[in-house]
Amino acid sequence: MTSPIRPPRIPIPLRPTHTLRFIRRLVRRVVVSPGAPPGTLVQVGPEPIHPVVVRILHYTESGIIREKEVEGGDAMVAAGASWVEHTPSGQDISPGETGVAWVDVEGVSHAEALNRFQESTGIHPLVMEDIMAVGQRPKLEEYDDYLFILLRMLRWDEEKGAVEEEQVSVLVGRGRLLTFRETPGDLFQVIRERIRGGKGRIRKGGADYLAYAVVDLVVDSCFEVLERLGERLEQAEEEILVNPVPELLQQIRFLKRELLLLRRSIWPLREMLGELERGELEMVDPATRPYLKDTYDHVVHVMDTVDALRDMTAGTLDLYVSTLGHRSNEVMKVLTVIASIFIPLTFIAGVYGMNFHFMPELARPWAYPAVLLLMAALGVGMYLFFRYRRWI
Amino acid sequence: MTSPIRPPRIPIPLRPTHTLRFIRRLVRRVVVSPGAPPGTLVQVGPEPIHPVVVRILHYTESGIIREKEVEGGDAMVAAGASWVEHTPSGQDISPGETGVAWVDVEGVSHAEALNRFQESTGIHPLVMEDIMAVGQRPKLEEYDDYLFILLRMLRWDEEKGAVEEEQVSVLVGRGRLLTFRETPGDLFQVIRERIRGGKGRIRKGGADYLAYAVVDLVVDSCFEVLERLGERLEQAEEEILVNPVPELLQQIRFLKRELLLLRRSIWPLREMLGELERGELEMVDPATRPYLKDTYDHVVHVMDTVDALRDMTAGTLDLYVSTLGHRSNEVMKVLTVIASIFIPLTFIAGVYGMNFHFMPELARPWAYPAVLLLMAALGVGMYLFFRYRRWI
Amino acid sequence: MTSPIRPPRIPIPLRPTHTLRFIRRLVRRVVVSPGAPPGTLVQVGPEPIHPVVVRILHYTESGIIREKEVEGGDAMVAAGASWVEHTPSGQDISPGETGVAWVDVEGVSHAEALNRFQESTGIHPLVMEDIMAVGQRPKLEEYDDYLFILLRMLRWDEEKGAVEEEQVSVLVGRGRLLTFRETPGDLFQVIRERIRGGKGRIRKGGADYLAYAVVDLVVDSCFEVLERLGERLEQAEEEILVNPVPELLQQIRFLKRELLLLRRSIWPLREMLGELERGELEMVDPATRPYLKDTYDHVVHVMDTVDALRDMTAGTLDLYVSTLGHRSNEVMKVLTVIASIFIPLTFIAGVYGMNFHFMPELARPWAYPAVLLLMAALGVGMYLFFRYRRWI
Amino acid sequence: MTSPIRPPRIPIPLRPTHTLRFIRRLVRRVVVSPGAPPGTLVQVGPEPIHPVVVRILHYTESGIIREKEVEGGDAMVAAGASWVEHTPSGQDISPGETGVAWVDVEGVSHAEALNRFQESTGIHPLVMEDIMAVGQRPKLEEYDDYLFILLRMLRWDEEKGAVEEEQVSVLVGRGRLLTFRETPGDLFQVIRERIRGGKGRIRKGGADYLAYAVVDLVVDSCFEVLERLGERLEQAEEEILVNPVPELLQQIRFLKRELLLLRRSIWPLREMLGELERGELEMVDPATRPYLKDTYDHVVHVMDTVDALRDMTAGTLDLYVSTLGHRSNEVMKVLTVIASIFIPLTFIAGVYGMNFHFMPELARPWAYPAVLLLMAALGVGMYLFFRYRRWI
Amino acid sequence: MTSPIRPPRIPIPLRPTHTLRFIRRLVRRVVVSPGAPPGTLVQVGPEPIHPVVVRILHYTESGIIREKEVEGGDAMVAAGASWVEHTPSGQDISPGETGVAWVDVEGVSHAEALNRFQESTGIHPLVMEDIMAVGQRPKLEEYDDYLFILLRMLRWDEEKGAVEEEQVSVLVGRGRLLTFRETPGDLFQVIRERIRGGKGRIRKGGADYLAYAVVDLVVDSCFEVLERLGERLEQAEEEILVNPVPELLQQIRFLKRELLLLRRSIWPLREMLGELERGELEMVDPATRPYLKDTYDHVVHVMDTVDALRDMTAGTLDLYVSTLGHRSNEVMKVLTVIASIFIPLTFIAGVYGMNFHFMPELARPWAYPAVLLLMAALGVGMYLFFRYRRWI
Repeated sequence: MTSPIRPPRIPIPLRPTHTLRFIRRLVRRVVVSPGAPPGTLVQVGPEPIHPVVVRILHYTESGIIREKEVEGGDAMVAAGASWVEHTPSGQDISPGETGVAWVDVEGVSHAEALNRFQESTGIHPLVMEDIMAVGQRPKLEEYDDYLFILLRMLRWDEEKGAVEEEQVSVLVGRGRLLTFRETPGDLFQVIRERIRGGKGRIRKGGADYLAYAVVDLVVDSCFEVLERLGERLEQAEEEILVNPVPELLQQIRFLKRELLLLRRSIWPLREMLGELERGELEMVDPATRPYLKDTYDHVVHVMDTVDALRDMTAGTLDLYVSTLGHRSNEVMKVLTVIASIFIPLTFIAGVYGMNFHFMPELARPWAYPAVLLLMAALGVGMYLFFRYRRWI
Repeated sequence: MTSPIRPPRIPIPLRPTHTLRFIRRLVRRVVVSPGAPPGTLVQVGPEPIHPVVVRILHYTESGIIREKEVEGGDAMVAAGASWVEHTPSGQDISPGETGVAWVDVEGVSHAEALNRFQESTGIHPLVMEDIMAVGQRPKLEEYDDYLFILLRMLRWDEEKGAVEEEQVSVLVGRGRLLTFRETPGDLFQVIRERIRGGKGRIRKGGADYLAYAVVDLVVDSCFEVLERLGERLEQAEEEILVNPVPELLQQIRFLKRELLLLRRSIWPLREMLGELERGELEMVDPATRPYLKDTYDHVVHVMDTVDALRDMTAGTLDLYVSTLGHRSNEVMKVLTVIASIFIPLTFIAGVYGMNFHFMPELARPWAYPAVLLLMAALGVGMYLFFRYRRWI
Repeated sequence: MTSPIRPPRIPIPLRPTHTLRFIRRLVRRVVVSPGAPPGTLVQVGPEPIHPVVVRILHYTESGIIREKEVEGGDAMVAAGASWVEHTPSGQDISPGETGVAWVDVEGVSHAEALNRFQESTGIHPLVMEDIMAVGQRPKLEEYDDYLFILLRMLRWDEEKGAVEEEQVSVLVGRGRLLTFRETPGDLFQVIRERIRGGKGRIRKGGADYLAYAVVDLVVDSCFEVLERLGERLEQAEEEILVNPVPELLQQIRFLKRELLLLRRSIWPLREMLGELERGELEMVDPATRPYLKDTYDHVVHVMDTVDALRDMTAGTLDLYVSTLGHRSNEVMKVLTVIASIFIPLTFIAGVYGMNFHFMPELARPWAYPAVLLLMAALGVGMYLFFRYRRWI
Repeated sequence: MTSPIRPPRIPIPLRPTHTLRFIRRLVRRVVVSPGAPPGTLVQVGPEPIHPVVVRILHYTESGIIREKEVEGGDAMVAAGASWVEHTPSGQDISPGETGVAWVDVEGVSHAEALNRFQESTGIHPLVMEDIMAVGQRPKLEEYDDYLFILLRMLRWDEEKGAVEEEQVSVLVGRGRLLTFRETPGDLFQVIRERIRGGKGRIRKGGADYLAYAVVDLVVDSCFEVLERLGERLEQAEEEILVNPVPELLQQIRFLKRELLLLRRSIWPLREMLGELERGELEMVDPATRPYLKDTYDHVVHVMDTVDALRDMTAGTLDLYVSTLGHRSNEVMKVLTVIASIFIPLTFIAGVYGMNFHFMPELARPWAYPAVLLLMAALGVGMYLFFRYRRWI
Repeated sequence: MTSPIRPPRIPIPLRPTHTLRFIRRLVRRVVVSPGAPPGTLVQVGPEPIHPVVVRILHYTESGIIREKEVEGGDAMVAAGASWVEHTPSGQDISPGETGVAWVDVEGVSHAEALNRFQESTGIHPLVMEDIMAVGQRPKLEEYDDYLFILLRMLRWDEEKGAVEEEQVSVLVGRGRLLTFRETPGDLFQVIRERIRGGKGRIRKGGADYLAYAVVDLVVDSCFEVLERLGERLEQAEEEILVNPVPELLQQIRFLKRELLLLRRSIWPLREMLGELERGELEMVDPATRPYLKDTYDHVVHVMDTVDALRDMTAGTLDLYVSTLGHRSNEVMKVLTVIASIFIPLTFIAGVYGMNFHFMPELARPWAYPAVLLLMAALGVGMYLFFRYRRWI
């Protein structure tokens, strides 16, 4: 008799398992088409709805030189060409200043435009293929005059109640930064604001510091996702204690998968940041290294928290099984006790319902009350015995 | 009362465990005959049904020089001899061009012909033994004038509903490639088409690039297998929620084994591609290395997905056990409640069925309806109490 | 019939799961505000209640030169300035002596004051940010003229019945030590006493030895926490054997989490102390190294004990499940036996309660006692059979 | 209603756990007698029954020089002395040929004779002690003029239905090989045959190639053991599906232990063969290295298969638990349904068995058939409801 | 019906969990007093009862020079002083001989005497603290003129039925050995006997060989402990099959903990012996290295056996759960079958016990035997059906 106050019934959304969708998310568009020559940029899936949006930001330590937002594939190709030609000491920068040209491309499914972009910029075809195939693992590759950083940005989508992933590709050149993303919306709004405001090191640092700011944003966004997942887990736990239904198990499995995705997106960042921070890459300024070390520490912190959450999720499964077992036991015990008390009593009643002609006690006037008393005593006795043995 | 709408009964094919067959698949033909001298090529099993098929393709950057398909052991020996004699700057290639001679042998169970092949080509007897013993782990071995790459190609056999494995052996020489396979059918059709079409780097690259194309094909074919296994897992999960029968457990165990096989076939590729890509092998051109790195990334991706699928398969087992337990609990609870309500009522009926002579209430006209009312009240009261306690 | 003596009912405090709070503790204040420039010291949370307290202790081998306790941000900034200017051979130390200036700051949430402190001391902004963000992982960083050591002090809070964590930041310079903590109260009382007493090496050693004393205090405080957790685990185990309720499962999960926190706080110390002890850091005197090795051994000991406790906690779960199952089995078995004995007897009574006109045995005078005897014999026989089969 | 056709009852041999015997097998004779000086060769256990048998085989590339089989300790000592004196270019070998003298000793429990053998050959006392203590882990040790290789040969003993282990010690000198084994019978018959036949490299290779042949034989013998264990596992699985009795659990635990033993015997071979193959040992000819690599691959293959079998054995346990649970559920459900249908019906019968004087329906002629109809309708209705809810 | 012969009830000693005692054993006396200066030798716990016993043994290759046993702290201090002064070529040794002076101290809790000992010998205070704090992990430390080896000796205490641990500290100098132990009794009796007997290398080897003999004794003593634990495990398994009570679970958990302790005591020896054997330590003679390698192999063997025992212990838990489940199922099934057979029969009896006036069959003379026959047929039919379905 553990729960005297009746807890309210909480409706739990039945969540389908989505195993296949999950697997497809893992496999998705890594291989553009099996057997095709590598470096081929092919249109995958339906024609893209959103146009390409290009955000150009050209700044030096003293201020912003150019800032514009253009649309369409041609604008992208043009921006790519100007990005390639840009040198740190460009024409519109006073001598001695380091200017950074940042071209941020939104929409990576326009195969034809990206093909032209590749041709005009001379970026390695495999890099362009990786940019388009948006299910890649995070990685860091060093090319002759740029670093290629591939990241996975995570966001909690409150509407879907799930983690949303987006692939962010970063190319860091000397005084040049190129970023590629897929979904509409200015993801780097907050960084752009810091450049405009001119606070901190951001305008003083080079393209490597700007790349660091992007990586840092990606890592920091995990903390919010983790907090959301923690909330969900807590909610699931509370519901388990109240009403352990199999839907909650599905919920827990869903959380496990989201944590798996998160882990896959973050784990390679560890090695990557370690490599960036060790300072063997020419493109990274020594002054940026403490900042990268700081982000590295954050990644380790995220991994720790992911692992703690995974541990706790596994514990929730134990809680589910054990709560279910306990509840079921409680029911069975009380009900079996009822049966056990009344079955012997019914037997006694059955004995005196027999039709033998010679049953002398039937004729005694005190027999009926005596039998009733006996039954009552037996019932109460068994009840007390069961309580004493802690069976109810 | 979780499932008010009756779900349709899905027939599940009862899948035998096949443990022994699985073990034999693992052990199969690795040892030709214990105690026999190594490098002996002995006929294993019955006489092969399919003849040896040899596909010769000789191409340079400018075009295809020779392409033919011959049958039989003698043709294979002849092709082997010409393969050995081939030098990158052969007679029918304009100076400065690099030509590649690719001999693709189908059918590796003709011991006698392979013996002659070995003698005429001078390939190490242990390599030939590995080619014939088709249950080997993938590996990479460097010999004096060729690299020996052993791969396992995976395909989903829709008919059998299982993963099919095939051993693919690759020998990469300077301007020469030799491939061995077992089952009939042109596995490398798609690569041959690319050579014929002349698109991409394939005709420009040497034999090492062609070997990369083969390895890449093997790795990419895993993604389809993974998607099929994901579909099966999802189907099994859905059926578990509807009707958790032990056959589904067998299905899950079957999926676990297929994943185990997949893992075994892919895991050694990681190290192998790492070694190829590090560029310490003389046979591998530096220009091919970024492509090998790309395939390496795909292998890592496959491994990640395999591990995620294994995790999910393990979770499915939990789901099975818990769904079974929940369903069984539901049944037991409702039925036990029925018993618990009627047993006390039966006792009351039994009391008034006793044959004592002095039972004054029996003679009262209101007694019968009163007892019926009492019974009804008791039954309804217990039912409400059980509902209140959430036992039903 | 295992427990003839009725054990007393022990009231167990129902402990909420606190998953969210736990996750927040993990994520807490690591990121001051996502997207903000790194090294920004921002006021997080409400205005701090407690004022900054600064404890200054300046000692040489021969005695204490200065010791004072001041309050407020301005005092802190002043102490910081004097700390920077301090050199081992200061004005008030006889030549040849090594003096150590120790500034211990309590209260790290006064953003504005810490900002001024950073400016006046020139400590790297990222270090100051780490000092303020009190949820960091322990770490060791080497800067040009100081070592930065970040620690997590653990204490058992008897009132809350939980482990309390506090971040302790240590900056070791040549002849200078700077410590930062959050909660009010002199944590380093015991070290200060040793300096005042002048016993042991403490006044002879430099700032590195003093830093060692702080690290050693942090590590040693874990042993008490471990003993408390062990007590709780033992108590939980005893209660499980008496009365396995789900609340105990919550208790076990709570202990698992505290052990997880402890592990996270101690694990990085291993590597850190290894690095300190290897003697590659200029700031650490070779004479201090055996002491650091000793602390390293203690850390390994703590880790071993944490792992043993985790193992035992996992075993407690098995104990819970199995005790619950055993108790439930006992109940069910005994009660089912009762039913099994009386149901056949009731059937016999039912037979002789039938109203057939021709039931010759009903008229025999010996029939009733004979049937009663039969029933008794049957009941006793079944009881004996059940005992023989060890079912009860 | 899963099994309409009654499967035949398969008798399963009840296998005792033998934990102690297993532990003793692990600990057996590793320590001759605790505290005794190392290198002491003491008679352990009862006096050996079988005499020492020595098989001497002296061959060169051109043919066999000497082959004889002698018995007794004195013959062994004599063979040892001649073995030591043997040099590759002995008296009876034509110049330029490499002859190999192989002395194969059977019976390692004759302490006294082995003592004399040690004295006459000058082999390190610790090596001799290892040869006698037949429970050692496989290992490789390099001494001044010989390599000491300790192996564990595995065989499937069909009679006992268990894996039999035998320790094989190999000493490889220049042109000399010494092998020690325990049980009677010519284990190396197949190698001797190959030497006699003169096929393959065996007579051309030196003592190192002969040692390779011994190691290869040991590794290849594992494949048969694995197939036998696979058969047993399959059999156990099939029996589980038919009739899950606890004896099968014992069978599974037995298989797990045999796999553990196998793993322990094979695992150290990996490192050992790696060391042999790396070619840093003077005793190993470079031409033998590809063969050692081949055996290394086989060891890896064996380890993979052992791990796959262990995985499957673990899965069998799940299958056992789940099949048992499913069968038990089926029984309980059907039987509980029977009870649930008849208990309410019995209640109705009880009501009309009450002896109230005023029960008007008792007097109606249609009442009895009506009640019977009601009962039938209720019974059928409940049955249909239970089927609809999938409870039976 | 699995157990037709009633097995005897084996009384199992109820073993309390002792979690706290276990934790205290782990934490015990590692920290003498938190916050105290390191290297302080403080009296921990009550005044020691047993006096200090010092056993001095001074021997050369040719014989024993001095052997005496003295008591009390002063004697210890004197022995320490003479130990320090001892040089391998001492006054009473013929030139060219290497003499070894071995001082064996029993009783390490006399803080005051040990303090004086430390002062007179100049041993590092941290070493002395480690010697006194008897809960340390095994370790090896190199000091300028001695090696410090800390070991944990394990013995099976038959009376307590538990593993007893004792810390053994060894200081190896050139020609000098110092050992410290706690409990009374000459642990090294067997080594002393070997020195007296002069057999083997023991008198020829230096102090390093004597230290090896001590380490070897510690390692070899584990084998007996393992065999005892194996016996206990086998006993527990047998009892589980007969009567699975929760006390056995406690027994298994107890065994798991003892194995954990054993593992903790042996694991660090692996690394330690590896370091000793690699031969980089000046104090270790190359001739001693094969012996250390031998002990290293024994440690690996112990670890393997510990891991096998742990695996088997985990399997025993599965056995417990499954046997309990199987027994409980057997009971429930048979009893439920009884109920299922009699409930329908009772219903039939109830029908003919109804008091309807118009029940024509009641008046037929054949009705009563016909109903009895029907009941018998139904009962037997159901019984046969249940058997056919393998439910009983």
